[in-house]
Amino acid sequence: MRELIRQLPGSKIREVANAGLDRSDVLAFWFGEGDEVTPGFVRDAAVASLKQGETFYSHNLGLHELREALAGYVGALHRPLGPERIAVTSSGVNALMIAMQVLVGAGDEVVAVVPVWPNLTAQPVILGAQVTRVPLRPQSGAWRLDLDELLAAVTPRTRVLLVNAPNNPTGWTLSRDEQAAILAHCRRTGTWIVADEVYERLYFGGGARAGGPPAAPSFLDVADADDRLLVAHSFSKSFLMTGWRLGWLVLPPALLDAVGKLIEFNTSCAPVFVQRAGLVAVEGAAATLPSLVGHLRTCRDTLLPALQALPGLEVAVPEGGMYAFFRVVGETDSLAFAKRLVAEAGLGLAPGAAFGPEAEGWLRWCFASRDPGRLTQGVERLRQGLRL
Amino acid sequence: MRELIRQLPGSKIREVANAGLDRSDVLAFWFGEGDEVTPGFVRDAAVASLKQGETFYSHNLGLHELREALAGYVGALHRPLGPERIAVTSSGVNALMIAMQVLVGAGDEVVAVVPVWPNLTAQPVILGAQVTRVPLRPQSGAWRLDLDELLAAVTPRTRVLLVNAPNNPTGWTLSRDEQAAILAHCRRTGTWIVADEVYERLYFGGGARAGGPPAAPSFLDVADADDRLLVAHSFSKSFLMTGWRLGWLVLPPALLDAVGKLIEFNTSCAPVFVQRAGLVAVEGAAATLPSLVGHLRTCRDTLLPALQALPGLEVAVPEGGMYAFFRVVGETDSLAFAKRLVAEAGLGLAPGAAFGPEAEGWLRWCFASRDPGRLTQGVERLRQGLRL
Repeated sequence: MRELIRQLPGSKIREVANAGLDRSDVLAFWFGEGDEVTPGFVRDAAVASLKQGETFYSHNLGLHELREALAGYVGALHRPLGPERIAVTSSGVNALMIAMQVLVGAGDEVVAVVPVWPNLTAQPVILGAQVTRVPLRPQSGAWRLDLDELLAAVTPRTRVLLVNAPNNPTGWTLSRDEQAAILAHCRRTGTWIVADEVYERLYFGGGARAGGPPAAPSFLDVADADDRLLVAHSFSKSFLMTGWRLGWLVLPPALLDAVGKLIEFNTSCAPVFVQRAGLVAVEGAAATLPSLVGHLRTCRDTLLPALQALPGLEVAVPEGGMYAFFRVVGETDSLAFAKRLVAEAGLGLAPGAAFGPEAEGWLRWCFASRDPGRLTQGVERLRQGLRL
Repeated sequence: MRELIRQLPGSKIREVANAGLDRSDVLAFWFGEGDEVTPGFVRDAAVASLKQGETFYSHNLGLHELREALAGYVGALHRPLGPERIAVTSSGVNALMIAMQVLVGAGDEVVAVVPVWPNLTAQPVILGAQVTRVPLRPQSGAWRLDLDELLAAVTPRTRVLLVNAPNNPTGWTLSRDEQAAILAHCRRTGTWIVADEVYERLYFGGGARAGGPPAAPSFLDVADADDRLLVAHSFSKSFLMTGWRLGWLVLPPALLDAVGKLIEFNTSCAPVFVQRAGLVAVEGAAATLPSLVGHLRTCRDTLLPALQALPGLEVAVPEGGMYAFFRVVGETDSLAFAKRLVAEAGLGLAPGAAFGPEAEGWLRWCFASRDPGRLTQGVERLRQGLRL
């Protein structure tokens, strides 16, 4: 085994979850996944495709009709674009892996904004690259980026800048002005931006462009087609399709052929019946997303005030995503604390340490819950666990 | 873009297929895929899972019941083994990519037996490794391995030996004695064997072990659990599930955790409903495989004699797999020849050059056809194309 693979940290979220595996009474909010089944009309599309016998290979880049639909969907949120800028992938994390493979090799330098879900920084390591971490910092109820610090870290030696915004786990998002400044800087240094924007629709502000549907600011609002920019997307969060493993990349047309080759060498294609489900999900987005985001806002507005009302907690208010991120005064070992909460209070949360040392002491709470009452019940368990 | 990604050759099979895209009258045998839809009982299992709402993440290593079933299936063919040696992956090619990631980094040396389907040799290149090619050679009606040449190429500097047997495209397979000699040698040099054995059940000889079900000889028949051996498998070929993107790795227990981590960073897991389909496919293997292989044998025995009857053809008789591999005297540019056959005869074959320079001049014909009459019709078109 390669030494660097041995040293890649295992998931600390799984470590906590494993500690609660035998217990059916744990209220679990540890994984980045809601408890809502994929809508019936989406599942029906996959069922119809299977019944029709669509069990063969598809094009590496995805079904043309799905690429067309995704181009229309992304274009309506941001700037118009065509299917020559879309590649369908076998999940969002797979989109990011392909982006890394096309850009990054041994010895290359990657700058990442952290804390961040661990997969993003593990991928360049697998490819032999060096990752420099630029920390967000908690500051009066939210996590903040020091833009000057980030720009100073990105030099002509930097091959890729990795940004996940809205951010998992902190809920921080990039502003339009920050995106413009980062893009201008990366144009000067020749650095690729790989933007993980899978939470863009789970956003509690307005539209990415005036009059457009609600979405977080995106690099696609400010970049040209030929900019060094790859944006990774997933069906998991906005379409309640975690288990389907379907995602896509928005890319410059010049990268399309190379990305198609890499898809061939990684999974070859996404299943056709999964793509058919994705197609109806995208076509139904305008009908389904408002209620999904509205419900998520209810969940956030149930959980956040309840957490804020507990003494001794620092709570970051998320601008997007589906996570509350908070810490308890005096608790500095988030892994031990999370395990204790499982054992003593039957409450399952993700330890901040899973997202990097910058988040040590914090806990992540996924509030995507069909029944907001589960969140209230969870806060009660936290209160008991803290002996408040 | 990385220069080495730019230089990775695109698929020459796709290049030929694209040349025939506008024509509905082409008899296509170019892809490594039959024309039989996945059996109904397998599709039904996925449909039932979708209807039950199994749309969430699953364990990185796969459903426990699937790993148990695969351990039983592999163990019955070769030596007994447990689920701690099985990892479920998002396709066979993905199993191979994960095997490469766990073993190979920049500057490492990989030895590959060639010609071979191009994905196998592209993967180490993506990871920055050097690939040394050891050629099979055509010899009186079959392709042969020079074992001494291979063993001389594998030295203590060789990190991985890549072997695909039964081989795509040549139909060559390894014998038990060759496997034992290779394993003994690799034990001495400390080299990992990555064996792509996805065609093991599409085999026209006897059982891998006496009294066992028909299967090609496998490294799993001669290796111990802790040997440096990874075997990649796929549901695509033996279970008519190409489009499902489901595969598995057989590995030493010591690699299980690392492979689980890498699955997380590549696709995270295979969809549960796809795994449910895989489970019933494996459970039904004893009932379905004999007729599938019997039909494939009929196809082979229809195509091979018809090709051998044409003057000026050299035809390699495949011991396993689902391909006829042949060349026509005087035709040295397989890509141009394959394109000409599409244009002039309406016959779609894969050019040997797609599998490496060692196979230049040859053509691959996938004979997995529901209707063997299509094969006869194809030979007639070849005869016309050759003006015989």
